[in-house]
Amino acid sequence: LKTLKVPQATVMRLSLYSRFLEQVAEKGVVTISSVEIAEALGVNPAQVRKDLAYFGEFGTRGVGYNVKELSQHIRKILGLHQVWPVVLIGAGKLGSALALYQGFHKRGFQIVGVFDNDSRKIGQKLGHLKVLPLDQLAQVVEKEGSQIGIIAVPADAAQQVAEKLVGVGIKAILNFSPCVLNVGEEVVVQNVDFSVSLEALTFNLQMRKMHQNK
Amino acid sequence: LKTLKVPQATVMRLSLYSRFLEQVAEKGVVTISSVEIAEALGVNPAQVRKDLAYFGEFGTRGVGYNVKELSQHIRKILGLHQVWPVVLIGAGKLGSALALYQGFHKRGFQIVGVFDNDSRKIGQKLGHLKVLPLDQLAQVVEKEGSQIGIIAVPADAAQQVAEKLVGVGIKAILNFSPCVLNVGEEVVVQNVDFSVSLEALTFNLQMRKMHQNK
Repeated sequence: LKTLKVPQATVMRLSLYSRFLEQVAEKGVVTISSVEIAEALGVNPAQVRKDLAYFGEFGTRGVGYNVKELSQHIRKILGLHQVWPVVLIGAGKLGSALALYQGFHKRGFQIVGVFDNDSRKIGQKLGHLKVLPLDQLAQVVEKEGSQIGIIAVPADAAQQVAEKLVGVGIKAILNFSPCVLNVGEEVVVQNVDFSVSLEALTFNLQMRKMHQNK
Repeated sequence: LKTLKVPQATVMRLSLYSRFLEQVAEKGVVTISSVEIAEALGVNPAQVRKDLAYFGEFGTRGVGYNVKELSQHIRKILGLHQVWPVVLIGAGKLGSALALYQGFHKRGFQIVGVFDNDSRKIGQKLGHLKVLPLDQLAQVVEKEGSQIGIIAVPADAAQQVAEKLVGVGIKAILNFSPCVLNVGEEVVVQNVDFSVSLEALTFNLQMRKMHQNK
């Protein structure tokens, strides 16, 4: 994995470009420039071109990008030309919210199993899914071909759950527990920390205050 | 706000640096170099120096940064030298999970009120908080001096809630609803989209697959 030198910020921006291009395509726009993409998303145009240049030559100088082509290219780069079956561990409040989250389906993610070890939660319905005991995880992962697991359990159980996921062949983990997971280099982990998003807000409030006091 | 040209990716990295420096400080480390920070977080050292240079001169060439000083500086840049009282709208599954989320407190965020307009939810206890009706929002915001609101309501109610928040004087919104909010330029909005984090994973799985097929 060390040869993949694409910065994480670029990958995040690709997700934004992808969403924006799909909105624009729906409106019937055929071509778009890096300047237009940049302005709509508050990014530098040179950054847009640099981000896309990691993945080959797109667009024509002076004409811009074909919206549909670029949109499909980016979806493919992000691996979104297929549906990803995802298993979810933890059927507490956060896990339940994630199981019912509408935003996943739209981007090609399908929760195929929700697991918990709490007997009061097992058997509960979350949308069309029934919460299953953890000992059925291996079976579901194999049947559905899942490579991605979401962890939404308390922090003190997260490492054990991560090991279980890796043990049944999961290759990528989205971790909502506020703790650092120790897994092998072969497994990709993405941590979700809600405070990071709040800090982007307080940064802005803070900057504004300093600015007003000048 | 147009004069604040700090890229959002820099702000996100500042949050990471901040977390890392606090871990390192706890271990008793006194000085640290940009190379060490960069290596620990998988960032380019030049990027670390550039990110910090937005906010003045830190560190000594050849010696590095004083961990505690830099940590405090970054906390201050992010506005984390104070406690932020936050109001939360929506006491459904996601809202409840957020109200009980342990990660906020650690970074100086305090949920001071949870609101819903569903009479079945009003009065319910979430930790030490009781869910309040939305018509008490203005009162709580004023009493607590909240500038930040979190939206965790269904997409079709989000815009209305955003307007209500702005109406009572909220300056910054963290939006968990999968929709674009229309608020004035004076209000900072940060959207949380869980699929973006999943796409960072599928990107990696995709790249790895391409790499193996070479």
